[in-house]
Amino acid sequence: MQKKVGILGGGQLGRMLLQAAANYPVQTFVLENDDNCPAAHLCTQFVKGNISNYDDVYQFGKGLDAITIEIEAVNEDALEKLESEGVKVYPSPAALRIIKNKILQKQFYADNQIPSSEFVVTQNLQDLTQHETFLPAVHKLATGGYDGKGVQIIKKKEDISLGFDAPAVLEKMVSLQNEIAIMIAINDKGQRAIYSPVDMVFDANLNLLSYQLSPAELPEKVLWKAEAIALKVVNELKSPGIFAVELFVDKDNNVFVNETAPRVHNSGHHSIEACYSSQFDMLWRVILDYPLGNTAPILHAAIVNLIGENNYTGPAKYNGLNDVLAMDNVFVHIYGKAQTKPGRKMGHVTILSNEKQELLHKAKQVKALLKVVSED
Amino acid sequence: MQKKVGILGGGQLGRMLLQAAANYPVQTFVLENDDNCPAAHLCTQFVKGNISNYDDVYQFGKGLDAITIEIEAVNEDALEKLESEGVKVYPSPAALRIIKNKILQKQFYADNQIPSSEFVVTQNLQDLTQHETFLPAVHKLATGGYDGKGVQIIKKKEDISLGFDAPAVLEKMVSLQNEIAIMIAINDKGQRAIYSPVDMVFDANLNLLSYQLSPAELPEKVLWKAEAIALKVVNELKSPGIFAVELFVDKDNNVFVNETAPRVHNSGHHSIEACYSSQFDMLWRVILDYPLGNTAPILHAAIVNLIGENNYTGPAKYNGLNDVLAMDNVFVHIYGKAQTKPGRKMGHVTILSNEKQELLHKAKQVKALLKVVSED
Repeated sequence: MQKKVGILGGGQLGRMLLQAAANYPVQTFVLENDDNCPAAHLCTQFVKGNISNYDDVYQFGKGLDAITIEIEAVNEDALEKLESEGVKVYPSPAALRIIKNKILQKQFYADNQIPSSEFVVTQNLQDLTQHETFLPAVHKLATGGYDGKGVQIIKKKEDISLGFDAPAVLEKMVSLQNEIAIMIAINDKGQRAIYSPVDMVFDANLNLLSYQLSPAELPEKVLWKAEAIALKVVNELKSPGIFAVELFVDKDNNVFVNETAPRVHNSGHHSIEACYSSQFDMLWRVILDYPLGNTAPILHAAIVNLIGENNYTGPAKYNGLNDVLAMDNVFVHIYGKAQTKPGRKMGHVTILSNEKQELLHKAKQVKALLKVVSED
Repeated sequence: MQKKVGILGGGQLGRMLLQAAANYPVQTFVLENDDNCPAAHLCTQFVKGNISNYDDVYQFGKGLDAITIEIEAVNEDALEKLESEGVKVYPSPAALRIIKNKILQKQFYADNQIPSSEFVVTQNLQDLTQHETFLPAVHKLATGGYDGKGVQIIKKKEDISLGFDAPAVLEKMVSLQNEIAIMIAINDKGQRAIYSPVDMVFDANLNLLSYQLSPAELPEKVLWKAEAIALKVVNELKSPGIFAVELFVDKDNNVFVNETAPRVHNSGHHSIEACYSSQFDMLWRVILDYPLGNTAPILHAAIVNLIGENNYTGPAKYNGLNDVLAMDNVFVHIYGKAQTKPGRKMGHVTILSNEKQELLHKAKQVKALLKVVSED
């Protein structure tokens, strides 16, 4: 019998999971409020419901063999109940609980001697004013942040009013050299597959990935340190699934964990074309109890995210798409979102080449050519 | 607005087309009798109906921007009507009409001075007995043949009773050195993209592809001849779309067209992983009026088809799947057909490597390990 596997959330990560699922004998189910979401038409059965609602998640999950997530903002109580009733959950609800809450996540790194930047917990804005000497720092909402929302840089005393008047962590700012990410899959037997680190270059304004290079060019010692730390994170979370560990490398080549996502992740998108087993393929191998895949790169890659342009809200239109599709060795992934809005992730473009200059040049071309605007 | 594109047929070719479609802004529609077919759950809207029925095809197509096929056995009268009403049809109904009927197809090659083996037309078995001196030959039903059905080798006089008692062509047998295939895409502007030829190795019993190597190893002169002939076929068909031209190379390095398929094709499956733009990606580029993709190979590849084992009919089970998934650089595509039966195409496996010995070795391993049987 084909296994029945559910995905909580119907965005682009669900969509790409379902593209990969079509290679395997599996029945797929998606829970999401919007029945025109990117994943709605690529699953065996779509279920309309709220992924943060206990009853919706429980009802959705109870007939399934396994369940996974494409976003952290799900009801973990329902997942715990499902787990206790024998449904396999990737990641485990216990690991999800730690990661979902940035206070618990930072405490987890500290408790497990995992290098991460210094932090203090703030309960409200009043609290934050007590930590003037801790600046410059990054203020992160404990829960509910996503895609650059819920994160505020507090450089100096005058910025304190920009902070969050709710439970949050204040993290000491790291003197950044690189921001890298490592994807790691771990199955129920504890076997692990680790992808090469990728170098993430961020847009300072939107706090969104600008482009990403893989594999990252790192001194061998930094590479080893980063991999050891990422593996330590995944080991201590004691959960099967796939994880993106985002790391800072500072000017002295120290490596710190920034944060971890317990799911397929933007920093693994290059793996669709650039690696033998993509992050999406890999998660299916974990869930369906198949052997783990080969994480080796076939070619080097760059990723450019397609973000809704400022000042455009409405039905999405992709200016310059033909120009980008005319470029060799460029792969376009449009997520099928009907509406664009400023800063919304609307797609990504992968460029393959073993020539770094070509990757950088084409990444810049793609960013200059392809703009997501609205039809009106 | 997203274009609305329909696919006639919901088998594995439709399924893989839909996996590729999810990278682009397009609404997809599938017409097929079986609402649990491989493509049913991967399209924006599934429509239950008969692809060979005029009304079903016409009703399905009349609200669409474009329509394509994944099998030739469709109602071309309805497609002609739709074309006259402004729906884009890939391939053109006129080209489809020629290809669907093996008598017309052979006549087309002859009329256009395209090298193809000698043939005679037979209307019935009685007719066939007149052509004893033409043997050894291959007898092919004019219409309705598929996947090895409707094809009968007639080596000698005594085999004549095995022939078809219906309109057919009798084709002189070629003294085969290689059987190769070339995929060519052509868009509405007449621009063409040609893939490297693949070497098809057939199973003599089932008359089904055993494995396939790409790119084919051919003397340069043969390669040029084969490409020129394949391009001539596509040019003379005067239709946009994607085409698989199957060719014979004889012991004297003469090249003959065997037959042409006006659609994505088994001989192009390696392109999913082995080429920058897969055959499925390429057809969407044609239909959506995007620039054609890059047909260059990233790596050499072998394909093994997964065929339902003899003596097994029922719910499909994939023995040895874990062993094959444990092999490096091997990609499994299971088509999601609920039932297996002897000779049914149930999936395919792609192996990537630039070492020919590794490709051949792994292809043999895959064939030995992976067996599609039934659960009962």
